[in-house]
Amino acid sequence: MNNTFYTPQMQAHFTHFEAALPGYMPATGGLQTVVAEAMAYACEAGGKRIRPVLTMEFCRLCGGDPEAALPFAAAIEMIHSYSLVHDDLPCMDNSPLRRGRPSTHAVYGETMALLAGDGLLNLAFETMLRPDVRRDVPADRVLGAASALADAAGIEGMVGGQVIDLNSEGQAIGLPVLEALQQGKTAALLIAACVMGARLAGATPEQEEAARAYGENIGLSFQMVDDILDVTATAEALGKPTGSDAENEKVTYVSLLGLEETRRLAAQRTQQALDALAIFGEEAESLRCLAQTLLERDH
Amino acid sequence: MNNTFYTPQMQAHFTHFEAALPGYMPATGGLQTVVAEAMAYACEAGGKRIRPVLTMEFCRLCGGDPEAALPFAAAIEMIHSYSLVHDDLPCMDNSPLRRGRPSTHAVYGETMALLAGDGLLNLAFETMLRPDVRRDVPADRVLGAASALADAAGIEGMVGGQVIDLNSEGQAIGLPVLEALQQGKTAALLIAACVMGARLAGATPEQEEAARAYGENIGLSFQMVDDILDVTATAEALGKPTGSDAENEKVTYVSLLGLEETRRLAAQRTQQALDALAIFGEEAESLRCLAQTLLERDH
Repeated sequence: MNNTFYTPQMQAHFTHFEAALPGYMPATGGLQTVVAEAMAYACEAGGKRIRPVLTMEFCRLCGGDPEAALPFAAAIEMIHSYSLVHDDLPCMDNSPLRRGRPSTHAVYGETMALLAGDGLLNLAFETMLRPDVRRDVPADRVLGAASALADAAGIEGMVGGQVIDLNSEGQAIGLPVLEALQQGKTAALLIAACVMGARLAGATPEQEEAARAYGENIGLSFQMVDDILDVTATAEALGKPTGSDAENEKVTYVSLLGLEETRRLAAQRTQQALDALAIFGEEAESLRCLAQTLLERDH
Repeated sequence: MNNTFYTPQMQAHFTHFEAALPGYMPATGGLQTVVAEAMAYACEAGGKRIRPVLTMEFCRLCGGDPEAALPFAAAIEMIHSYSLVHDDLPCMDNSPLRRGRPSTHAVYGETMALLAGDGLLNLAFETMLRPDVRRDVPADRVLGAASALADAAGIEGMVGGQVIDLNSEGQAIGLPVLEALQQGKTAALLIAACVMGARLAGATPEQEEAARAYGENIGLSFQMVDDILDVTATAEALGKPTGSDAENEKVTYVSLLGLEETRRLAAQRTQQALDALAIFGEEAESLRCLAQTLLERDH
């Protein structure tokens, strides 16, 4: 983990989260050892943990205890991870690698990966709803947060984005369909990460709307930067082959709008994310840094 | 639907549920039409809807409004249905048929069936947690009910049962492993169906324990009767080939214990289910009939 990516505030959330996550994983031993290991494997080495860190930071920013957000931070990471496991399956992207390691089905087999993915999606809700992990968060806030994640992960959100992606393969889709795809595949969970944190803290409607707008704008900006880097970055900086979108004939922001216009839109989205933070004043500095860092990254 | 299977009370729940279920399915039209259709297809023609009917009846029995239980009844049917969709996939049982119709992946393709299953599991939680479907059920009861279903559907319950099943293929497992398998694959969701209804009504701990015991005992009895019928029934009565367990070298209660001992245990489990209902007095007559009917069925 590169220490310059996050402010010390965010880095503290990250460190806290990494220490807590294994405690939310199912116990190994007994008849469920292999599937429990597959589930843990899928959640390991998870990179920057942006979604969990956002949940904890928005909870803090809206006056809550970031530690009370940990089960929800774990839940959103489980859902993100399950989506990668199922996405890599032979009947989906058929990808043998994920983040430089063998994908879950490459290690545990296709059937176990399917069940581990199902188990992780389910575990996200077990973790959020189980009374012993709810600390002192009132029941209506737990419901509000869990509901935000459920809505974001389903057919109107992440699963919906994957369906659009699947149906768009090899098709000359336009900007409206690309936006719908990325709203689902990328923005929905980032929005939920921010909104969950806000709801857990009992945020005002204005604070919650700011959280939503921040999540949406960094989400779409993030995807645009991804599309730009696939064209402009060196494979060395990216840690994976570049030009893969063009090779796969994938419609991207760059293929539809060109590099310059995509750069302009990414900067505009980032500015909208920064604007949304205005109501939080100086307390939102860490989130401003993150938005800027995500825009300026070279990998 | 055979009208003699349920008492009029239970038949009313069934009718009510069938009328309400389509309203909980995702809208078609737009980019999600095909996946929405696949999700609805998987939940159609669902047979007796025992789990939803149990949720509604236990809610009524513990003093609640069975109509308030409808979103939870829909949720448990969605989870039951998703498990069948994923179970039928080529990498699992590779089954082209389900309930006499082509299985979901046979109609919609493997990838869409995978995503429809993911979408249904997720939709179960969307449906339970969404504020606009909660009617007047207090937030802590919603959490209690949703948590019961989450726990039952995951690695400690239904998914866990499928993992044991997968790992047991072609193995000479003994009774303890078979019981763990059936607790997960069959009993867990039936227990959750009963406990959810009780929790939604604000049941006492004694009522909730009775609901749990009833669900567990009819669940295990149900599986024993299934195993018996696979050996003794005619294919005509069963509507599917008999002897499939032996052909697949599947370990069952009958293969481990013999017909007579399995019959004795099934009757014993049914009696324990009936005993659990004692605290409800005459009001539990419909549930007594159901337990007896499930034991005495010939298909």
